[in-house]
Amino acid sequence: MTLHRSIAALSRSIVVAGIAKGSGMIAPNMGTMLAFIYTDAEIGVEPLSQALRQAAQRTFNRVVVDGDMSTNDIALCTATGEAGKVNLSEFSPALEECCRSLARQIATDGEGATKLLEVTVKGAQKEEAAAKVARTIIESPLVKTAVYGADPNWGRVIAAAGRAGVDFDPNAVSLWISDENTMYPLVSSGEIIADLKKAKEAMHGKKVIFILDLGAGKEEATAWGCDLTERYVEINGRYTT
Amino acid sequence: MTLHRSIAALSRSIVVAGIAKGSGMIAPNMGTMLAFIYTDAEIGVEPLSQALRQAAQRTFNRVVVDGDMSTNDIALCTATGEAGKVNLSEFSPALEECCRSLARQIATDGEGATKLLEVTVKGAQKEEAAAKVARTIIESPLVKTAVYGADPNWGRVIAAAGRAGVDFDPNAVSLWISDENTMYPLVSSGEIIADLKKAKEAMHGKKVIFILDLGAGKEEATAWGCDLTERYVEINGRYTT
Repeated sequence: MTLHRSIAALSRSIVVAGIAKGSGMIAPNMGTMLAFIYTDAEIGVEPLSQALRQAAQRTFNRVVVDGDMSTNDIALCTATGEAGKVNLSEFSPALEECCRSLARQIATDGEGATKLLEVTVKGAQKEEAAAKVARTIIESPLVKTAVYGADPNWGRVIAAAGRAGVDFDPNAVSLWISDENTMYPLVSSGEIIADLKKAKEAMHGKKVIFILDLGAGKEEATAWGCDLTERYVEINGRYTT
Repeated sequence: MTLHRSIAALSRSIVVAGIAKGSGMIAPNMGTMLAFIYTDAEIGVEPLSQALRQAAQRTFNRVVVDGDMSTNDIALCTATGEAGKVNLSEFSPALEECCRSLARQIATDGEGATKLLEVTVKGAQKEEAAAKVARTIIESPLVKTAVYGADPNWGRVIAAAGRAGVDFDPNAVSLWISDENTMYPLVSSGEIIADLKKAKEAMHGKKVIFILDLGAGKEEATAWGCDLTERYVEINGRYTT
């Protein structure tokens, strides 16, 4: 068990801090995940609950380690009120930032993982459609093993997107791979323009990012996962032998 | 590429025979799967098409190797008519038997697989509900790795069933494990009665069967998959290195 920590400070002297426990069965709608978030902001139960639900929807519920879910999930936020009143428009982004940081740490810490996989889907008509595509890519065993093998396999990414149940025009799709510093184009408006040698360089670090533009709208969503390794199989298959 | 063969003979001298190619990305709705079935029965295009659709729905579309789908699937049935007319009620079961045999062989031949995993869900209100639960169990990485490790992990099976999106009463559920010869009870009407040492014996062969009774109706469905092994990760993650 690893504890993950995150602190997001607002411009004023109000703090949102959290710790979370991952990370085996982790899937959308959470799984064996315990997150405890604390703030000294003064904020009512209803607005805090709403802000936490939205933040969890956009962060914890978009982490997939292996698709299996657990029964004992929790994301809890406690507000002490010590630091005084705060606007929801100011507080919500800080809460979401805190949750996003924890979500990322949980994915990084996935069983057997060697790399964090982050997938951002842009250009969707609805945020939920973007999230659906991002989650399907994150979950794909073929994408996960390609990331493990440091192969910029754009075909597996696009194929996973294609079976997500969201309509899009393959000829409008663009795909990039990134290591957070440099973005390498793989597909541009349906045309394959991958320089695979260069793209491979983006995959040797601890974080692999795919950015997929569906070219169909203005909404976007990000999901987090990790690579699938022999170690995952060992942890979950060889514990009795 | 492995070719799978199956021949199902009717009581009369009519033959339904098939060959199929598996097996990497295999998921419900097929994936990189090519199946060619031949019969000498005389049967019209419409009834043959209907019979094949139903058989494919109950067999090929219930095979999951890794959940990834492909774009070039086909299940084709050719009827020469040489052997004369045949009743649909007689022909359909033979066609389904042929498809089921091919489906099983495709699952057995899954990338890196060491064991065939067969899950039958009984006691559902609808066949589609039973199929949904069976497919969710078959797809679960935790179930697949437990099968690889020969662990009769009833908890992982029931947990996967619980997230399939089908309502059932956990206190009405029964679960058995089988090696085709002996059935070992694991859970009986919600009570854990597993003799794990004996149950483990059912997992040392090439075929592991789970039978789950939801206790909610009379419909059933079977799905086929395989275990998840280090070899799967190697095939799909280490091909470039």
